[in-house]
Amino acid sequence: MIWDVEIMEKTWKKNFLNIEPYTAGEQPKNASIIKLNANECPYPPSPEVQRVISSFKSDTLRQYPSMDASPLRRAIARRLSKANGIELTEKNIFVGNGSDDVLATAFRAFFNGDKPILFPDVTYSFYPVWCELFKIDYKTVPVSDDFEIDVKGFYPENGGVVIPNPNAPTSIAVGKDFIVDLLEHNRDCVVIIDEAYVDFGCYSAVELTKRYENMLVTQTFSKSRAMAGMRIGMAIGSPDLIAMLDAVKDSYNSYPIDKLAIEAGIAAINDEAYFKEIVGRVTATRERIANELKELGFNIAKSSTNFFFAEHKSLSAREIFEHLRSRGIYVRYWDKPKISNRLRITIGTDYDMDKLVEALKELI
Amino acid sequence: MIWDVEIMEKTWKKNFLNIEPYTAGEQPKNASIIKLNANECPYPPSPEVQRVISSFKSDTLRQYPSMDASPLRRAIARRLSKANGIELTEKNIFVGNGSDDVLATAFRAFFNGDKPILFPDVTYSFYPVWCELFKIDYKTVPVSDDFEIDVKGFYPENGGVVIPNPNAPTSIAVGKDFIVDLLEHNRDCVVIIDEAYVDFGCYSAVELTKRYENMLVTQTFSKSRAMAGMRIGMAIGSPDLIAMLDAVKDSYNSYPIDKLAIEAGIAAINDEAYFKEIVGRVTATRERIANELKELGFNIAKSSTNFFFAEHKSLSAREIFEHLRSRGIYVRYWDKPKISNRLRITIGTDYDMDKLVEALKELI
Repeated sequence: MIWDVEIMEKTWKKNFLNIEPYTAGEQPKNASIIKLNANECPYPPSPEVQRVISSFKSDTLRQYPSMDASPLRRAIARRLSKANGIELTEKNIFVGNGSDDVLATAFRAFFNGDKPILFPDVTYSFYPVWCELFKIDYKTVPVSDDFEIDVKGFYPENGGVVIPNPNAPTSIAVGKDFIVDLLEHNRDCVVIIDEAYVDFGCYSAVELTKRYENMLVTQTFSKSRAMAGMRIGMAIGSPDLIAMLDAVKDSYNSYPIDKLAIEAGIAAINDEAYFKEIVGRVTATRERIANELKELGFNIAKSSTNFFFAEHKSLSAREIFEHLRSRGIYVRYWDKPKISNRLRITIGTDYDMDKLVEALKELI
Repeated sequence: MIWDVEIMEKTWKKNFLNIEPYTAGEQPKNASIIKLNANECPYPPSPEVQRVISSFKSDTLRQYPSMDASPLRRAIARRLSKANGIELTEKNIFVGNGSDDVLATAFRAFFNGDKPILFPDVTYSFYPVWCELFKIDYKTVPVSDDFEIDVKGFYPENGGVVIPNPNAPTSIAVGKDFIVDLLEHNRDCVVIIDEAYVDFGCYSAVELTKRYENMLVTQTFSKSRAMAGMRIGMAIGSPDLIAMLDAVKDSYNSYPIDKLAIEAGIAAINDEAYFKEIVGRVTATRERIANELKELGFNIAKSSTNFFFAEHKSLSAREIFEHLRSRGIYVRYWDKPKISNRLRITIGTDYDMDKLVEALKELI
């Protein structure tokens, strides 16, 4: 009998978790690349963030941060109370290490039923990954040919619902009527509205968290607050939902937000004027470039986000993707059902977008 | 028939995860408190950390950080190669949001067998919490009356092993013979050596990661590098183990380490001279105060850490704990089997420890 030495030596791998590693988007290291592939903000964070970091006393790092990052939760509660015309306190706010951490924590906390959870078939690609990791059964609800979500698809009994609004990568938003309809038909499980891109012009369901205790809204500092590099995400909901998120967090990693992130996050959320300015700039660029792309023969979904979901009338998405790449412009392309002829193009600065149009004109 | 309105209204809680929230130690807000309850370093991080933070350009925060924090991994690999006389590359290093995040990721990645995993009955209290969260079956191996770990307790077939060295809260270390014996009897599963306190004077198993591909060593920036507030932990092991940790991380939260933490972590790990200086100071204070406490009637385990595990010959731990608290000195006390007459006392500055001795003299 001949033993396979390689297998013999690695028996200790037998208890490894059985998962397919998730492959994320490309992070080019060359600074001259025009990076329109990660929906990052083309503008820097608030100058207040720089001020806080420059004057930070590193001595304080010897001690653990606030376990619940409560100064940051209070600042977020104050800002969102004002923005949404309701009364929120820190008991309505959860914070995590980016909104992926917040969403993952929510999936684990709330989706433990026998019935499958529901989300659109074209949506944020991390949802099925978390379902696999946490062994959550799920069913996808098909979007229409023009990528609209049908609320009736979410009427059947389920173990939970998660919908991004606006949806990604489609960039399409739904309105208040849709959300209320969804909630009225889903009173017996937790409904998550993932509002990563909400600040670029879409109805926010935060005001409804007071009326529907079973709805959690998630938002992020990575897009409209220009702080993807700092890793801060948040959830807004009833005290019951927030307490459960805290219980899961405290059973996993007690201090996910470091001291500098807490201070920088507070500085960013308090600077409403700057926030409005950069969101205004991104949306102005979006409207201008949408027209230019249409003139070049693109069919573009109406974007309520900081990116386009675009298809060309004659050229294939892959062809455009590769041409742009050869010109040092990175956009996002997926070889997946329903969306393989679409590109997701982040709205950059006016300069970035003019370069994009220029490169496209070469091809078209 | 009368409906219970409260229950009716909260049916959406039915799919909540069934866990007991973990209760962590106290974080006093009053700055005049002498805080000897969280094993934090009494000295600030390297001055290089301050330099890096003060000169950090916040503009870069608009983009996501390096997904694998590879510049930090490389700096750690360089430092640990030197310190342990072996050749490590970034393929041997994993980093996470504090060593709790690293350990939690490792538990999920490696402990998925049918057999229970093994750890000492007196040890880091997060281990059973992760087992509950991830539904990992476990069995504890009793330590002796003087809190020594018997390696034979880890010979029986198991689904994995985790041992802190030095152990916490006992402060007691084992040597190379113990670790090699443990590994020779555990070739078929993953063995984790949790070296959170190793730098305060104990054998490090990092050199053995080359010989035993199934051993993972975890370390942290929170103790000897004085950066608990920054949340950086690391694991050292064979490329197979590290790749699996990355697969789990990438299925959960792609970017757990923010840009500032990467830069500050590199600055800290590169400043070996400062690191040696503060570790030297802590251990000098430890030896001096150990003698003073013994003179006051304390029985103290031989500490290889930055804390004492102490019992008084006549006064109860609770009594001492409450007296110290009334004097503004916080230490750690657990009302738990085997250790309810012991206090865990962090080594502070000489000033802190003189205050401690003074307060104890009042009582004794």
